[in-house]
Amino acid sequence: MPELRLNHITKEWVIIATERAKRPEDFKSRGIKKHPPAFLPTCPFCPGNESNTPEEVFRITEGDQWKLRVVPNKFAALHRDAERIRKNAGIKHSISGFGVHDVIIETPVHNMTTALLPLDRVSEIISTYKKRFIEMHSDSSIGHVIIFKNHGESAGTSLEHPHSQIIGTPVTPFQIRERIEEALRFFDITGECLVCKTTAEEKAEGARVVFETEHFLAFIPYAAISAFHTWIFPKRHAASFSDITEAEIPDLALNLKTVLAKLYFGLNNPDFNYTIRSNKPRDSRSESFHWYMSIVPRVSTTAGFELGSGMFINTSLPEESAKFLREVSVPLPNENPAL
Amino acid sequence: MPELRLNHITKEWVIIATERAKRPEDFKSRGIKKHPPAFLPTCPFCPGNESNTPEEVFRITEGDQWKLRVVPNKFAALHRDAERIRKNAGIKHSISGFGVHDVIIETPVHNMTTALLPLDRVSEIISTYKKRFIEMHSDSSIGHVIIFKNHGESAGTSLEHPHSQIIGTPVTPFQIRERIEEALRFFDITGECLVCKTTAEEKAEGARVVFETEHFLAFIPYAAISAFHTWIFPKRHAASFSDITEAEIPDLALNLKTVLAKLYFGLNNPDFNYTIRSNKPRDSRSESFHWYMSIVPRVSTTAGFELGSGMFINTSLPEESAKFLREVSVPLPNENPAL
Repeated sequence: MPELRLNHITKEWVIIATERAKRPEDFKSRGIKKHPPAFLPTCPFCPGNESNTPEEVFRITEGDQWKLRVVPNKFAALHRDAERIRKNAGIKHSISGFGVHDVIIETPVHNMTTALLPLDRVSEIISTYKKRFIEMHSDSSIGHVIIFKNHGESAGTSLEHPHSQIIGTPVTPFQIRERIEEALRFFDITGECLVCKTTAEEKAEGARVVFETEHFLAFIPYAAISAFHTWIFPKRHAASFSDITEAEIPDLALNLKTVLAKLYFGLNNPDFNYTIRSNKPRDSRSESFHWYMSIVPRVSTTAGFELGSGMFINTSLPEESAKFLREVSVPLPNENPAL
Repeated sequence: MPELRLNHITKEWVIIATERAKRPEDFKSRGIKKHPPAFLPTCPFCPGNESNTPEEVFRITEGDQWKLRVVPNKFAALHRDAERIRKNAGIKHSISGFGVHDVIIETPVHNMTTALLPLDRVSEIISTYKKRFIEMHSDSSIGHVIIFKNHGESAGTSLEHPHSQIIGTPVTPFQIRERIEEALRFFDITGECLVCKTTAEEKAEGARVVFETEHFLAFIPYAAISAFHTWIFPKRHAASFSDITEAEIPDLALNLKTVLAKLYFGLNNPDFNYTIRSNKPRDSRSESFHWYMSIVPRVSTTAGFELGSGMFINTSLPEESAKFLREVSVPLPNENPAL
């Protein structure tokens, strides 16, 4: 029998459609996977083609070589040099396209992926996220900074070389405001942070846990919006990602890499998106909001129902998916089976 | 230069990314289109296979033949015979999977599409929507009814035989509640219905209008979430789709069919979703909410940015897309070039 479950973070109901439910194995990516080369001469992110990207804003090096580069997006959605003009004409409100849009080239190796990267490299990516997140927010015209990764064509990427993106927008998205307000309402009623409470309950129940490290808990939400949708919640209360500590960064790297490796080996390298949801640094003292990561494998399609209602139909059981991922064995964090 | 525009209905900002903008022609579907047969012996919706669907709840006939059938979804997301049990355990809230999930088989002809259907058939589909919408809502346990169509694989359909779906859920989706509340806030401040006001302003400005009929205005929203996203707004204020009149039904059919035909001929039969957003019949007297149709062609991919922020990046200019669609000439409503 199907069941509706409330996603308390989004306040949206999800239909867990057991009638249509598939076994976890059925979500394995069956598409013919391309096996790209380690170096592609025509790739703008491959070493030697540095002049094909806009001028670099940051790099991490190892000897003569770069290991990671941050460059402005050549086809930026928003521009840092745009004028900052707001127009309010009746019901038409617009803002000139001011903002920041960076690309983080995560590795010089064209066919690498986070699941297989050495752990310290994943830590460097997360450290870079933190650095750029704080830098972008230092301009008070920036209302929100969103960190995300698109892996694979169905997840919306146009370049296969491993990269993630950071966009700073001149507004706070309505959806983010809603989440912040809902977290505050929960706090006002219960005196508790909803994310802290959820972390404690998920850990105690255990059925939906995917992987736990010292500082982070990865689990499939009770009302996951789609199959293998995974949240990584920091155990320590912190409203803003900018507050992640030097001790927590490698721990998050281990957690993220392990979850992605479980997806990689368990579901045959599915396309996925991940994103970090966070308050801005200046609101980091909030008692009610709590930053977290969300990973959404692209193993199902949203359709008119989701578009028209905002609700989701999930054709998998979160508890079964979590059990499946828990049991996927992955190489040790610094072991790279691809090398 | 890019521009951010506020979508007043959703209250979300959309980035109109002119730097990445494509010409309207660039959104033409380039995939190799399958040319399915008019009759497919293995299709559960084709004539002769009626026993392969759950027991019919409604049909429209012509002589001995059915022209349209309504059947429960064989793989229903929700069940009408389910117990109605709510569980509230700490932060876990669930409801047994009670609800209604119908499929409207729109035509016996396997390879037909709304863009090419005779006008009176499209009217019959809309009349059927109205009938089932009212019937489903007559059960007060149903909190919301969503009418939608998935056309094509990337729009989430698994069966190519033309059909749409109606789902009645035991809850009102959070997103719908938000829209209703935002409409009410706008009304409280201005004394105006936002949809009525938008319709009047779009008609006066004209730049984003796609097609106008006596009772409906089709236009690309000022802050369209993606290329060729189209709204069809009723000119007469009505909160619930259940109030559509006998005079308005064929007029909506003409408007909808024409818009879909413009997409079909102008963009080479792109995949699309459409949906009707409506208050429930018992709330039909609302001064602030106003029902409407939304059509979203699947000509672009949402990625981590959209997922993580709720904002959209649109790589087309609404005014250019609308001009393009206005200029696509389509056969007269009752002319079928496929026959």
